[in-house]
Parts: sequence; C-alpha cells; structure tokens
Amino acid sequence: MQKGACLYEGKAKRIYKTETPGVLWVEYKDDATAFNGEKKDVLTGKGRLNNEISSLIFTQLKQEGIDSHFIERLSSNEQLIKEVEIVPIEVVVRNVAAGSLVKRLGIERATAFNPPIVEFYYKDDALGDPIITDEHVRVMNLASKEEVDQLKDMALQVNEHLKQMFKKVGIQLVDFKLEFGRDQTGAILLADEISPDTCRLWDEETGESFDKDLFRFQLGNLQDGYETILTRLGGLK
Amino acid sequence: MQKGACLYEGKAKRIYKTETPGVLWVEYKDDATAFNGEKKDVLTGKGRLNNEISSLIFTQLKQEGIDSHFIERLSSNEQLIKEVEIVPIEVVVRNVAAGSLVKRLGIERATAFNPPIVEFYYKDDALGDPIITDEHVRVMNLASKEEVDQLKDMALQVNEHLKQMFKKVGIQLVDFKLEFGRDQTGAILLADEISPDTCRLWDEETGESFDKDLFRFQLGNLQDGYETILTRLGGLK
Repeated sequence: MQKGACLYEGKAKRIYKTETPGVLWVEYKDDATAFNGEKKDVLTGKGRLNNEISSLIFTQLKQEGIDSHFIERLSSNEQLIKEVEIVPIEVVVRNVAAGSLVKRLGIERATAFNPPIVEFYYKDDALGDPIITDEHVRVMNLASKEEVDQLKDMALQVNEHLKQMFKKVGIQLVDFKLEFGRDQTGAILLADEISPDTCRLWDEETGESFDKDLFRFQLGNLQDGYETILTRLGGLK
Repeated sequence: MQKGACLYEGKAKRIYKTETPGVLWVEYKDDATAFNGEKKDVLTGKGRLNNEISSLIFTQLKQEGIDSHFIERLSSNEQLIKEVEIVPIEVVVRNVAAGSLVKRLGIERATAFNPPIVEFYYKDDALGDPIITDEHVRVMNLASKEEVDQLKDMALQVNEHLKQMFKKVGIQLVDFKLEFGRDQTGAILLADEISPDTCRLWDEETGESFDKDLFRFQLGNLQDGYETILTRLGGLK
C-alpha cells in the first residue's frame, strides 16, 4: 500500500489517497486545538497516542460486532480506513453531565444520566458546530429518518461497549463524540476516531481527567493522560 | 373583580392577584426588550396593542376549540387569566426560516418548511433561553413524555389556526413562540400571550415586518406595525 496525494487536512489528521480505490491513508497529527480552533498547540506524541488508542478501540469494537471505517494500523501514527462520505452530524452520547451541557443548561457537573443522552451537532466549523434536533436534520436534509434512527441506535451500542471497556480498567466514560459515514453501498459505518480527543474519561477513584480537558482547561500534561488511557487499555508503551 | 398584590413583574407584563383564587389580573407594559434584555426602550401604546391583539387571538382560538388561560379583556391594556404553573419550555413553531435559525444554522432566510419545525427552548433568562431537545426535557424533568407530545400537538394545532387567521388578512405567519401552563388539575393549557412580540409576521405582498423585528433591527416604527396587525385582524383602532 502506498501513500498518494493528500485529500484533506483537518485539525488533527491528514488523509491521503492510496493506489486502491475506496481505501484511504490517515496520518494523525500532533496538533491540539480546542474551542473551535481558538486554542492551539503542538503536543509531541499526541498523534501517536490517538492513532494507537483509536486503532485499539476500533479493533475491539469490531470483535464485538460493531464495524467501522477502520481497516488496520500501519504505524505508530498512521492507519488505513475505508473511504466513506461523512454524515455532517456529530453524535454525542452523555452518561454524565460535563462540558457544554453544564455551561449551556446549568445542569450540575457529574449528574449521571440513565438512560444516557444522545445529542446531534451540525458538523460545520464556520457555525461552531451548533446543536440540532431531528427536525433540523429533516429540513437541512442531513440524513434520512432511517439513518437518524440508525445513528442513535449505533451510538448507544457503541456506548455500552465503550463503557464496559473503560470500566474494566477503572475509567468512567463521561461522554464522547462519534462521526459516521456512508460507504459506497450507502450503508452507515462508524468513522472518524475514538480517542481522548473525542471522549471525556475520568479516573473512577480520583475523578482525574485523562482527556482533552487536560489541554482545554490546562488541568495537566495531555500526553501523560493519554498515555494512561493507552496503557490501561492494554496498548504498548 | 379587584386588582390585588403584584405577584410578578416580567419584561412585558405585570401579574396581580385578584380576590378570586385561581384568577389573575395581567397588565401589559409599554416596555420593549430584545436580545435577552440587552436592548430596551419604552414604546407608548405597545402594552395596549399586545393586550388587544392577544385578547382577540385567544378569543378566536377558543371559538375554534383551543382553550387557553385567557378569561377576558378588562381594559385596553389589562386582561384576566386563569392561574397556571408555567411549563419552563418555550415552544417555537417555524413555517419559514428567520431569526436564530438563519444565524445559528446557516439556513437561507425565507426558506419554507412543510411540515413546520417545532423547537423547544429552556425558559431561563440567566442562561439565555437555550435550545433543548426532548432528551434534555427528560433529564431536567421539565415535563413528562405525555406532556411533551401534547405541547407539540397543541403548538401545531395553534399554528394551523393562526396561519389561516393571518392568511385571510394578507399576512404570512413566519414563526411564533408559545408558552403553556398546568392548571390545578394538571391539565396543559395554552398560556402567556400571542402578539407581534411573540410572532414573526410578514406582509404577504411586500415582505414588510409587522412584529418585534421592527424594534430588534430598527426596521421601522413598532407601534405602526402592531397597529396594522390589530386593524387587519378586525380589532378596534
């Protein structure tokens, strides 16, 4: 497999063509951004950590019957994925109140939700990824009614698997963001990444954050937190 | 009926007790506010116009089978209402894109929605009335599942009646906000007001605004616009 032309550079990843149609090459960058790009830094090792953690999680989810765009890990900061058309909806699952939910709605931090909350955000950097309802998805034609139901079902399934995966190693899965894509047949596939960039992860004992909040709110060293997640999940140091 | 102690003073109304339990006295004020109270003014006659228009609309809705907290018009700027416990959800119905929908989601102004969009906002001035989904209503315990369905159904029914009422007099009902309350039996009743303060109303021919956008965006004289609505609906000059 060979890396071809760069198709897209995002905030945290570069995506390249390969010689195989429908297969893309992802390179995870060391760039950290928060608050819709207002806070930025380069954190050496972040790309490797997210690639390793995301590869490990997608592999484990696949073993548990949840398929994704992930094909295989190529190197410490690279992986191969299936090409999909990204659905412009960020799906957020919340088990515990934190972040924008606390700020926007005044819900007390650490309030537990059972069943969890599923939220949709319109994936649009220029608009700041605003929260949307099923009604907005309908009028903006972002996904069909059937796809909306599927996104919610799949997100809740992923939540059950991830919650267990993290619970086993003493970590509370607070919330996380998923993205989905349509493959060439139009089927919905889990996409993007699952990493401490896209999850809130708290130590079950101490409440310590091991996720991007380390960077957002300068709570501590991001790489140390992400390394803790990788190590606890059984990944290589 | 006698006006008793003032129970509550809001941005646009004062509410008083009466000697009859369960019956309140509303006085419409001339205060105009917009953008969550950031823009303010006193516009002589506004209280009268909103009281007259709201009384007229609630009376007409009652004739068409939609009950509300409205009992009767008392004077040009006063009315009697049934006491209800306000559900802290602002229900917005949108037939046409305008306002926050355009700004927040980038939908083109004047895009028509059929069926209309129903949105919920958490009624909380300190938080700026943030948009919420059914999921937030659930975890914040703002209303039961049955009440949520009822709010949506009633809002869509009100929309059908209002759309016709305005269409007959050459006005397009763009969007509007409703509030609901629970009476002493727990039944859901339409509450608050329906006026150019809570509706967007455009002239069908010219697209001219006859609503609070006149004040929000300094498009013209608010009282002239509201007077047009009152006159076209058949109210007294």
